This record gives sequence, structure tokens and C-alpha cells, in this order.
Amino acid sequence: MQSAFVYSIQQTEGAARLSTFTTPHGTIAMPAFAPVGTQANVKTLEPRDLTAAGCGLILANTYHLYLRPGHRLVETFGGLHTFMGWHGPILTDSGGFQVFSLAHQRQIDEQGVTFRSHIDGSRHRFTPELVMEIEQALGPDIAMVLDECANPLDYVYNQQALARTHRWAERCKIAHSRPDQALFGIVQGGIFPDLRQSSAAFLRQLDFPGYAIGGLAVGETKTQMYATLDETCPALPTEKPRYLMGVGAPEDIVEAVYRGIDFFDCVLPTRLARNGALLTPDGRLNIRNAQYAADPRPVQEDCACYTCRTFSRAYLRHLYRAGEISALRLGTLHNLQFMQDLMGQIRQALANGHFGEFRAAFLARYQISDQSVRHEQRARYQASLQARAT
Amino acid sequence: MQSAFVYSIQQTEGAARLSTFTTPHGTIAMPAFAPVGTQANVKTLEPRDLTAAGCGLILANTYHLYLRPGHRLVETFGGLHTFMGWHGPILTDSGGFQVFSLAHQRQIDEQGVTFRSHIDGSRHRFTPELVMEIEQALGPDIAMVLDECANPLDYVYNQQALARTHRWAERCKIAHSRPDQALFGIVQGGIFPDLRQSSAAFLRQLDFPGYAIGGLAVGETKTQMYATLDETCPALPTEKPRYLMGVGAPEDIVEAVYRGIDFFDCVLPTRLARNGALLTPDGRLNIRNAQYAADPRPVQEDCACYTCRTFSRAYLRHLYRAGEISALRLGTLHNLQFMQDLMGQIRQALANGHFGEFRAAFLARYQISDQSVRHEQRARYQASLQARAT
Repeated sequence: MQSAFVYSIQQTEGAARLSTFTTPHGTIAMPAFAPVGTQANVKTLEPRDLTAAGCGLILANTYHLYLRPGHRLVETFGGLHTFMGWHGPILTDSGGFQVFSLAHQRQIDEQGVTFRSHIDGSRHRFTPELVMEIEQALGPDIAMVLDECANPLDYVYNQQALARTHRWAERCKIAHSRPDQALFGIVQGGIFPDLRQSSAAFLRQLDFPGYAIGGLAVGETKTQMYATLDETCPALPTEKPRYLMGVGAPEDIVEAVYRGIDFFDCVLPTRLARNGALLTPDGRLNIRNAQYAADPRPVQEDCACYTCRTFSRAYLRHLYRAGEISALRLGTLHNLQFMQDLMGQIRQALANGHFGEFRAAFLARYQISDQSVRHEQRARYQASLQARAT
Repeated sequence: MQSAFVYSIQQTEGAARLSTFTTPHGTIAMPAFAPVGTQANVKTLEPRDLTAAGCGLILANTYHLYLRPGHRLVETFGGLHTFMGWHGPILTDSGGFQVFSLAHQRQIDEQGVTFRSHIDGSRHRFTPELVMEIEQALGPDIAMVLDECANPLDYVYNQQALARTHRWAERCKIAHSRPDQALFGIVQGGIFPDLRQSSAAFLRQLDFPGYAIGGLAVGETKTQMYATLDETCPALPTEKPRYLMGVGAPEDIVEAVYRGIDFFDCVLPTRLARNGALLTPDGRLNIRNAQYAADPRPVQEDCACYTCRTFSRAYLRHLYRAGEISALRLGTLHNLQFMQDLMGQIRQALANGHFGEFRAAFLARYQISDQSVRHEQRARYQASLQARAT
């Protein structure tokens, strides 16, 4: 039987690749960015908005959907595509990351991980086999193996976790049977080149149709992340798509494409929008700032999104300050468009053989938010999750 | 000079009127329902959504916009239409109702009303002259005179308030000068026929281009409200549009049209949606109920809104229960469509000379929410406002 999935490289420039990945729900032009629809909904948006922005892939979270509304309910609707009304490609994560970052009283053993729901404290257990059952019921085009997400700076922990993650990857592969769903392996190993390389080598022999790099963008510096990509990408097969999980800062995407990554997912652009941080080619624009109070310009002059075509910065600032729900949505529409436009520009630059110039020009113009500010924001967000959960 | 405003009756059936009101930003087909965009935004919606639903008129609140972002800022943008990106007809209230229901430490005197902002406690004073200045700066097609909103059941208070409201109406008329803005008078007088009739008579001689009935739907029973309309509508000139302020329950709209009202505004349909109460021809559907957990049907089978065309009740219930912002918007899209469709059906019935049958059929099918439940909901909402404000 011919595979429902075809990965094809059209052009390369150094390690960077212009490619396509064909799935049962459409062909994804890569490099691609997938916005996150945690609970089967990209927050504040509708499927028609995703289409209008040019999204080729979205992500949904297995942990959340397993807890609510339940994968069996989604299955009775024919899977996530019909349930949520999005008929393009979907990827689900394995829930592993959420179990480690959101759930309570988690206990890991060789067979799986036991935890309490962050919603109601109820007790649950994920095994590689159950996660495959859940993801096959949810029915995305791309599913991920269950892995253990370790602190990227802790060598000993990563070494131990990696061995178990590899055994779980084998079990996932055995338990997975849907031919219309591609199961990707996940390379772990923190910031340690030897662990990353042994992980890539181990997973290669399992011959997954695609490979993710997990355990990054969770506390290490950008320099450490880029160095890890430099080590890991060459260890992955050329002819399979490569997915960098949880990365979504524009500068990181450009740098990761440069190192050979094909696609990304992240809550960052949509979460930033809800906080009033709007993305522009010059960096983040904090729309709540007083300097925009009477500014008649759109957020970004050359942006084709509905927000930029319709409203001034002054009006958007008013909506954010007034606490209007519409503000969150209008900001999200823009940030999503910015990300999709960025990916389109990257693809165009690769097609023209000018990605090197694009990278230099983009990074020269785009003002990166101060790292300490970003880390403080992340700490504050995680504290708020803890506070909400307890 | 020819007036920018033309009111024209196409058909009548008993007291009910099929009519049009032409304004500088378009002709409103009446009977009409105006959703409320308190802070220059109909909550969760965009101008394109209002257009898609068939909205011919929206309302914005002078009190809120005066406080934030300020009418002078809106004026620099050329008024509300350009500021908020809605280029159809707009009506602003006078802010009187909000000063009495939201603001703090209000003190009324012959010249005006002094109050503290519910946002930051700052001190402000509305006079008829200042309110005219604000509404002319905001630039809606229809502006309202400043009035005093009294408890509809208190005869003595209404009698006193009415005299002052009439003097304020005179002062508003003198202070108002924009020929591209229609200033409407507001009939007050609670549930008391003699007061309503004297109010209508007084305002008629000021020859406003349209008349509102204020001070209803604020605590009296439906029977009292309908009886008041029975007394008041015949006292208003036939050749001017009639506006029932703050009424938006479907059954009340049908009954008020029957008594001669041409248009309405209310937060009810949009607020209900945010609470998960979705309007259908059978009455309100509480989408959070367990009975919809696996229901594949749309909210309303024959509704053409995006929500009904795209999503099942089960999916919507999931979004509401999961606390997704999108739920509020998708519910609002539907409720707004329901209201616009209701007005379209009313106009069609009037055009065909079958409004009597339509009214009977609608009221026979539409299950009215229990009055005690409604009053309890309103009390809870007002308590939450108080709690938020203190």
C-alpha cells in the first residue's frame, strides 16, 4: 500500500530545507508554523481565521482532550477534524509535556506515568499503549510518541529519562496501527551532544516517518538551544521531516530553519497577543503603551490581516485597556498572520536561494525581547498556573 | 436644506408599523434591533460580523466612551464610525442611565448630575449641554437627550424627575446643532399613564425627529410594561420613529412591535450568549447542560450563522465548559443572528399583512424564561457590578 504521507524536499540552502509534507488532510508547505489549539480550539479563533491566515497545520493537546471532553467523545464525531471543524492537517502531542508541567502528584515508573488532573484532581495513568489509543481516537494526521521531558541542564536525569523514553518509543511504535496517521519519534537529551546523538541514532533505527526534537525552549539559553540544534539535526535522516517542539519566537524559528528544522509549534504568538504584545518586523509592540493612545496607524503597515486592514493602534489600545474580549482576538489574528507571513517569507527566500540574506536582514531588524524579561514572564506565567491549580 | 433623516412607513397592521429610517450612514429597515457596543465594540464581535448578521443599527454608550477613551480622542478619528470601523448607522445613549446605574456618589441638581467614575473614582459632571457636546463629538447618526431614569414604580419620584427631564430635553435641543445627527427625545413617567401622556405631550411640542420610551424593562412586570406601551404609543406622533430603550427579550420585542414600537436596543442577546444561554425559536437553550454533551446537531437547525453552519452543540458545550473565549464569541454570533432573523421575520410578516398570525405563532412556540429566574439573574448581575465597583 502506498503511504498516505510523502515528504519531499524542493530546495536546500546549507542545512535549511524548502519542503512539503503530504498528509491525508492536505499538503503542508514547510518550513511551517503550527498554532496551538490546546482544547481543540486555537484560543479566540475559528477555523475560517486559520484558513484566512494561511495556516497549514495546527496542534492540539492530547492531555487536555483526554481529560475534557474525552477522546472517546471526539472519536464518535469522527475525530478532531470534524469535531472542531478544521479540515486541514492536525498534529497532537503525546501529553507527556503537560503531565510534567501541569498535572499534580505525578509518579513515573517503567510502565508509565500516574498523575492527578489539574482540573479536578482525579487520578489518571498514561502508558505508551494508552496514549497511542488516545491519539488514534483523536485522529490527527501526525501523532507523537509518549516521552519524558527532563530539565535540559541535568545530565544524569536526562541520561536515565532517555533510556526509558527510548523503550516507550518502541512500545508506541508497536501499539500504533492507523495507516492514515504518521507517528513521529522525539529526540531528547537536553543540551548534551552525546545524549542527543545517541537518541537520534536509536530512534533512526525505529524508522519513524518524522522526527521531533523535544526538551528545548524550556529554560536553557538561546545559545544552548542553537548549539543543540547544530548537534542534533545532522544526526537525523535527511529524507524525513524535522519538528522542533514548543518553539515559536520569530528569531528562534529563523535560526532553527537555518539549522535544518522543517516545522514548529508554539503557544507564544497567541499567548503574547492576549497579553497585548503584537509582533512586527521590528519586534514586539506593546499595544497598551501610552505612546499608541492616538496613533492612527495599523499595528503593521504592510500586514494583510483583518485587524491591520480595519483598526488603528489607538482603537486596539482602547479595547485592551477597556478589557474587551475582542482585543484578545484581534491581537491574535494579527500575531497569527505575522507568523504565517514569516514562514511564507522564509519559504520564498529558500525558493530564491536567498535565505542567508533573509536571515541576516530579519535578525538585523527584529529587536529581540530581553532574555531576562522573557524568563521573568515565563516564571510569572508558570507561577500563575501553579496558583490556579492549587 | 433637506433633512439627512427621512422616516417612512410602508405598511401598518393595527398599531404595528413596517418602516424605514434613513440616516447619513444608511437606511434602517424597521422594526429593528440594535446590539450594544458599550465601549465602541459589540463584545466579542467585529464590524464584519455585524454586517454578516444583517445589523442595520448599533448602539454605543456615551458614559463609557466619555470616560475611556474620551470623546475628544474619538473626535480626532472623525467620530465613532471611523474609530470603531463600523460604517452603518450608530446611536448613542445620553449616559443618563449609566450614571444612575453604574456611577458612584451621584448627586443630581437642576443644572446636571455629579458622579464618580466606576473605573477610577474620579469626579465628573454631566449637564445637558456637556452631553450634547460629547454626543456631537462622538458623531453617531442618532443622539439621545440627557434624562433622569427613575424607579418605574415610584409615582412621586417620577413626577419630580419628569419635570427636570423635560427642562433638560429643552436645553439639549437648544445645545444640539449637528444637522447630520438626529436628536431624539425620551418619554419618561414610569408605569403611570398620566405621567407618560404628559411627557409625550410635552416632548411632542419640542418636535424631535424621533421619540424614545425610557424607564422600562428596569424592574416592572411584563404586564406593566405592555400596559405602559399601550398608553404611550398612541400619544406619540405617527410620523416619527419610536424607540423602546433597553428592551431585547424576543417576546417583549414582538409585543412592543404589536403596540407600535419601531426599534430596540439591548445587551440581553449578547450577554445571554456569554452566559451560555442560546436563543432558539423554542426559547433559550442552556448549552452547558449535560444533555448536549454528545449532541451532533447545530444550536438551531435552520440558522445560517457561522456557528450553526460549522459546529455541533457538543463542541460548543465543550468550549463553554473548557472556559474558551471562543465559546463566548460563537454564542454571541448565534444570538445576534437569531435577533436579526427575528426582526426580518417581523418585517416580512408586516409586509405580507400576517403579523397577527406571526405574533401568535411565535409566542405559542417561544418558551419564555420564568420571570423569577430572570429577576434573580438581573439581581445577581447588578450585585456583581456593585461588587466589582467597590
